[in-house]
Amino acid sequence: MDKIDINSDLGESFGAYRLGMDEKVLEHVSSVNIACGWHAGDPMVMKKTVDTAIKLGVAIGAHPGLPDLMGFGRREMAITPEEAKAYVIYQVGALKAFVEAAGGRLQHVKPHGALYNMAAKDLKLSRGIAEAVKAVDSDLVLVGLANSYLVKAAEEIGLKAAREVFADRAYGKDGNLVSRKEPGAMIEDQDLAIKRVVRMIKEGKVEAITGEEISIWGNTICIHGDNEKALGFVKKIRKALKEENIDIAPMNNRFL
Amino acid sequence: MDKIDINSDLGESFGAYRLGMDEKVLEHVSSVNIACGWHAGDPMVMKKTVDTAIKLGVAIGAHPGLPDLMGFGRREMAITPEEAKAYVIYQVGALKAFVEAAGGRLQHVKPHGALYNMAAKDLKLSRGIAEAVKAVDSDLVLVGLANSYLVKAAEEIGLKAAREVFADRAYGKDGNLVSRKEPGAMIEDQDLAIKRVVRMIKEGKVEAITGEEISIWGNTICIHGDNEKALGFVKKIRKALKEENIDIAPMNNRFL
Amino acid sequence: MDKIDINSDLGESFGAYRLGMDEKVLEHVSSVNIACGWHAGDPMVMKKTVDTAIKLGVAIGAHPGLPDLMGFGRREMAITPEEAKAYVIYQVGALKAFVEAAGGRLQHVKPHGALYNMAAKDLKLSRGIAEAVKAVDSDLVLVGLANSYLVKAAEEIGLKAAREVFADRAYGKDGNLVSRKEPGAMIEDQDLAIKRVVRMIKEGKVEAITGEEISIWGNTICIHGDNEKALGFVKKIRKALKEENIDIAPMNNRFL
Amino acid sequence: MDKIDINSDLGESFGAYRLGMDEKVLEHVSSVNIACGWHAGDPMVMKKTVDTAIKLGVAIGAHPGLPDLMGFGRREMAITPEEAKAYVIYQVGALKAFVEAAGGRLQHVKPHGALYNMAAKDLKLSRGIAEAVKAVDSDLVLVGLANSYLVKAAEEIGLKAAREVFADRAYGKDGNLVSRKEPGAMIEDQDLAIKRVVRMIKEGKVEAITGEEISIWGNTICIHGDNEKALGFVKKIRKALKEENIDIAPMNNRFL
Repeated sequence: MDKIDINSDLGESFGAYRLGMDEKVLEHVSSVNIACGWHAGDPMVMKKTVDTAIKLGVAIGAHPGLPDLMGFGRREMAITPEEAKAYVIYQVGALKAFVEAAGGRLQHVKPHGALYNMAAKDLKLSRGIAEAVKAVDSDLVLVGLANSYLVKAAEEIGLKAAREVFADRAYGKDGNLVSRKEPGAMIEDQDLAIKRVVRMIKEGKVEAITGEEISIWGNTICIHGDNEKALGFVKKIRKALKEENIDIAPMNNRFL
Repeated sequence: MDKIDINSDLGESFGAYRLGMDEKVLEHVSSVNIACGWHAGDPMVMKKTVDTAIKLGVAIGAHPGLPDLMGFGRREMAITPEEAKAYVIYQVGALKAFVEAAGGRLQHVKPHGALYNMAAKDLKLSRGIAEAVKAVDSDLVLVGLANSYLVKAAEEIGLKAAREVFADRAYGKDGNLVSRKEPGAMIEDQDLAIKRVVRMIKEGKVEAITGEEISIWGNTICIHGDNEKALGFVKKIRKALKEENIDIAPMNNRFL
Repeated sequence: MDKIDINSDLGESFGAYRLGMDEKVLEHVSSVNIACGWHAGDPMVMKKTVDTAIKLGVAIGAHPGLPDLMGFGRREMAITPEEAKAYVIYQVGALKAFVEAAGGRLQHVKPHGALYNMAAKDLKLSRGIAEAVKAVDSDLVLVGLANSYLVKAAEEIGLKAAREVFADRAYGKDGNLVSRKEPGAMIEDQDLAIKRVVRMIKEGKVEAITGEEISIWGNTICIHGDNEKALGFVKKIRKALKEENIDIAPMNNRFL
Repeated sequence: MDKIDINSDLGESFGAYRLGMDEKVLEHVSSVNIACGWHAGDPMVMKKTVDTAIKLGVAIGAHPGLPDLMGFGRREMAITPEEAKAYVIYQVGALKAFVEAAGGRLQHVKPHGALYNMAAKDLKLSRGIAEAVKAVDSDLVLVGLANSYLVKAAEEIGLKAAREVFADRAYGKDGNLVSRKEPGAMIEDQDLAIKRVVRMIKEGKVEAITGEEISIWGNTICIHGDNEKALGFVKKIRKALKEENIDIAPMNNRFL
């Protein structure tokens, strides 16, 4: 039976600021990526989010980001691989402490925003991140864009890697995501998006924006849950996956 | 044979800013308290300080502080016990990750500056801190001012507590430190300061500023190493302790 | 004809985080207090809020706060009067630049949250704040709680002071606000609250929670606009003030 | 008589952290660039530095930087021109308030570190910065690398621009600074460096690293004063300029 993980970013509130529909999203995913206080989140939010995820039995990952709260970690910053390594150790360590304080176990690490995007294109930066994850706990899974340097860096040092795919994004013939600034970057047709996801899981293939068929194996699908429309799409995906006999399970499940 | 630990605050540099004489201080202490990025320190500094301490065999503690880099964590802030708990879990988790990434093991936690002083006088705040430490790792030692609520809160929940004493500070008859704003708060005479320390270790007693003899058992002495004069005093203390057959050893030693 | 200003806190969003219903509130007030990036707000938010207020002809004030974004400036911090002075110059200067860049003129300064509350009870801190405001522009109005040290400190140095009153809060017989933690601190009955406001404006009197009649002259009423209920209350107050022939006008109007 | 300004970065301390030899540097320069609290500096440091500069009669400029205290504003960040504009208004406004509170007048704005370097190569970003400066005060001088987009953007909108040259750096044949990573980027020979500076001021020419003679008019020389060697070099430059009958005067002097 085919398996897939569904992950979503959570715990992005900060102080008096509320963001996201965390409670509702938690019902639909098998893994969550929890912000670690740099681009979003704070210790009170982290604690509450971790406690809720553990209570609901959803697998937990750390979601470290750039030191840019004002930019929500979405702006590229010229950090060195050594800085990336130290920043990831710091943030993953902080989140791991909340998970273990609540009696749980951290499953994975997924870099956030610009750190994720920069790493996808930069092997040295990816190596800094992968070394950080391994140093904190060599059993952690590192989540990166399918076909990206982040996955490659994890595998180079024997770290478990989960390949992330996107239901609603177009791919170039080189396997990279088409930039949101390009026409056709977003797959607006939900039925088509779902068909593409099922094919990526079952056949490891997807049609690139240029028409070629490219190879892409996904272990986890990223979904957004910050509005009702997004939640509706998630429910539709879940239903389709069930009908296709694809099991939804946390990403570390495939490494067992 | 009597035993005492000597601890010092380290890793207080931040970004382009250098503070302290970390390399020199490390030669003279048995334990170090490393800043966790809130009142001082950053991930690059934390990593380097942890790596050096492990290389030199000095025991490592986390030194969590208030979220006030501009005030170096020295200004009281009205945080709740729940916030204190979350802030300590966060910072201790971050530092612990660097220690474990370097193959070491975290020994203790000592709150910094205003957090330490506020906790000494506030049992609820102390409980928040003690619960945080226990939640992260129940084998950690919590360092608090001798005779203070921080020590009491640790003991209430079965956490190992180390009582900190100061060589160069006067004590009130209630066992609290005399405020630096009061006359006579600092013991300027180094020989007298050393005699007091030896007595606190051997007899568990010290003369209060009001003349009474008070009871005070210390497990660890806090020393400063940010200038040559301070380092000279440390060398003098070490020499005196040796002559008195007092062994200098990391604080967890006494719990073995 | 009696006059009153109605003020509200605005521009409290930060980065990706949205807070408040700024557009709607602006329709109902004569003055706004705009966050300056320390406890809330960021330069993009400040620019947009200032531009909108100027377009709608609403008078603008700076709303400086403590350096505590995580606590939204609501937690007391032990800062010195000199620090308060420097922090207020910094934040007021930053906001003033946006106002002048948009062709406007800054009307007032109202400290936020814990800074406002601390100053109300601390004359030295209030003096630091008042000196800062005067140093930046001696024509600015300083807004403080009616009968508080902030008003006193402004008047001592010849700065215009606006006395702020609250429609929905009970007063002690000493003229201070009853703490929200005490029973009866909030005036839940909207009609009663409005009657009290009208009396404070027309007669300079209000009944204290202990039954005595106390003296209180208000120049500006603080209203909240972060939910529909609050907005409804504002509309009701405005209607009542009109019926009582009380003119709603920016606070600097009374100094002309 | 030829004229030149000598500028230096000041006020880079932060909280408990001390950086630079501000008192000594102030004796040797005609203009200072004072950090505005984002990449360095804090309100207490800004106030003190401004007060000292005014007392000594040295012209003051704002030195706005990226929101990256941990990286000292030296790491490139992908901010938009709109963000650059808002960030510069904010920081310049804050510093201007301290200058005016002390009875002085702000002379110029010089972007710091990565913001300066990014702007030199990016006309849109430079336009955002130039618009910000003009919006705050159209009499301000904007300092940019000679021959760079920052100077061009200032001139496009009628803002006074000061061209900055470096005594100890090599230039490419396109007029840009040779990257510090390239061999020969630094002019180590102090006598040669001084000859080059004199020629840039008197003839508007310098020899590029590739041997060609390029055109470069400088209005201000940037010097560093963070160590004794640097201060010695400054004294040597001043002596040479005097011997060549070049007057050292604040940059706004040339626009009078």
